Amino acid sequence: MKYCFGVDIGGTSVKIGLFCEDGRVIDKWEIKTRTEKEGVNILPDIAASLKKKMEEKKMQKEEIVGIGMGVPAPITEEGIVNGTANLGWGYKNVKEEMEQLTGIYTATGNDANVAALGEMWLGGGRGHKNMIMVTLGTGVGGGIIINGKILTGEHGAGGEIGHLCVNYDEKEQCGCGSFGCLEQYASATGITRLAKKKLAETSEKTILRNGPVNAKTVFDAVKEGDAVAKDIAAEFGRYLGYALANLAVATDPAVFVIGGGVSKAGKVLLPFVEKPYKERAFFANANTEFALAELGNDAGICGAAKLVLG
Amino acid sequence: MKYCFGVDIGGTSVKIGLFCEDGRVIDKWEIKTRTEKEGVNILPDIAASLKKKMEEKKMQKEEIVGIGMGVPAPITEEGIVNGTANLGWGYKNVKEEMEQLTGIYTATGNDANVAALGEMWLGGGRGHKNMIMVTLGTGVGGGIIINGKILTGEHGAGGEIGHLCVNYDEKEQCGCGSFGCLEQYASATGITRLAKKKLAETSEKTILRNGPVNAKTVFDAVKEGDAVAKDIAAEFGRYLGYALANLAVATDPAVFVIGGGVSKAGKVLLPFVEKPYKERAFFANANTEFALAELGNDAGICGAAKLVLG
Repeated sequence: MKYCFGVDIGGTSVKIGLFCEDGRVIDKWEIKTRTEKEGVNILPDIAASLKKKMEEKKMQKEEIVGIGMGVPAPITEEGIVNGTANLGWGYKNVKEEMEQLTGIYTATGNDANVAALGEMWLGGGRGHKNMIMVTLGTGVGGGIIINGKILTGEHGAGGEIGHLCVNYDEKEQCGCGSFGCLEQYASATGITRLAKKKLAETSEKTILRNGPVNAKTVFDAVKEGDAVAKDIAAEFGRYLGYALANLAVATDPAVFVIGGGVSKAGKVLLPFVEKPYKERAFFANANTEFALAELGNDAGICGAAKLVLG
Repeated sequence: MKYCFGVDIGGTSVKIGLFCEDGRVIDKWEIKTRTEKEGVNILPDIAASLKKKMEEKKMQKEEIVGIGMGVPAPITEEGIVNGTANLGWGYKNVKEEMEQLTGIYTATGNDANVAALGEMWLGGGRGHKNMIMVTLGTGVGGGIIINGKILTGEHGAGGEIGHLCVNYDEKEQCGCGSFGCLEQYASATGITRLAKKKLAETSEKTILRNGPVNAKTVFDAVKEGDAVAKDIAAEFGRYLGYALANLAVATDPAVFVIGGGVSKAGKVLLPFVEKPYKERAFFANANTEFALAELGNDAGICGAAKLVLG
């Protein structure tokens, strides 16, 4: 039996998993992400943690297929980042540095893309090789898997689908500087924005007026049959469904996997997205499946492991 | 020196090229596409033509790396079509049938995707491995190349970018049944439509009122400095540029290559697309290059050859 490490670097902690080749997780732990001094300690800290684990488990280097790493920044096929928002890194050859620190083959990817790969391998996209994952969190992230491989793109910015323009008439600006990005409607913050607008426009009765308004309370109200909440969910779903129809005509996936905090609403969410998707899908893509993500916070370490298992 | 064949199957003729491994074309010819009887003769006719050429050139099977084929239909990674608009074929395993007929390794792809691969190898996308080709003809076709390989997708329908929705308010229907597809604005027919609308709306003086109105006369008038023609070109460019910005955020190409009949207008066309592209592009994709296709009708046989040269 051979093993590998899946490493998911975040801005506050690094999640690490030790996997068997067949996908079983043997061990899982976290270390702190030391971002001070331009993040100079991050990779050495990870290398030390992996070394310690190998000693603990009495594993030889030869038993380790490789180290897969998800990085919260655009990262090229060659493992190079040109700056990060949360880690302090400027230019860094992550792959080369990690291989020098450990003497073990290392593969890298963007964290959202790597999470998508994880969901394809062991989660909501299981059994498929062409998949789009949409992560509905504070923002909207994504990952596109083509023929079992991450679509990395020229600058490591493939799958940044939160910034698809879905409304050319939008007057409010997105965090990226543009207007009408999917993220402005389909993220947790976006849904809250749609909800507040709707509540200001209508005098209809709704349980949403009784407490805090956010993505969770909107979908909770949908489950109660609240008509205003359903209208808000329909608007969210129209933006997301139309965007996915445009992605499908370009990349022709077998399945869409929807994850992130918003997806915790559960299966109730899917028809709100599927219906407008089908209205706008090109005929060749009309029957693309929809699924919920299944791995939660473990998607990153799973996908990172899959990077080296191939 | 080894050789390969590049075959581009069209509805009326099959273009065939004999290539050296290094990309040089040694010979180039056409045969008729016999679509009658559900197209049963098409592949045997091609196989016979290749055999004849090998005898003429005194080539042995062992000297042929393979046969690459572009097919005018969605075709899976495995070489299977499930129906064609122009060839008469229903379900057909093109790869398997061709290998049985010739005893030579065969690789297949959709014709628009294969033409994109050709432009990457020897044309407007030379030197790049991440590319989107847009073919502006009677319709709008396309091909997406990721890491040097065609993005085929689950149903062989990857890169069908003519059916990206770019206008959710459109009332006229696209040939595909949907509304607001890129093809309705950026194809030769689409540009004619935009031009006729514009001429009906404005009383401004324009040389376009002196003769036939079509994509060619519009761009000819642009070259003469005609203000109305420039407005029409700007509208065309806005739809196309915005669509490419959305494609870039998903697939992060190094270069867009613009081909097809409309692109014969030449370099005058590019700024009309680049300007709105830059207005809408995600920052990571803002500097993606624009180029014109260079291979014309030979893009198909070149890309087909590249399919087997890898």
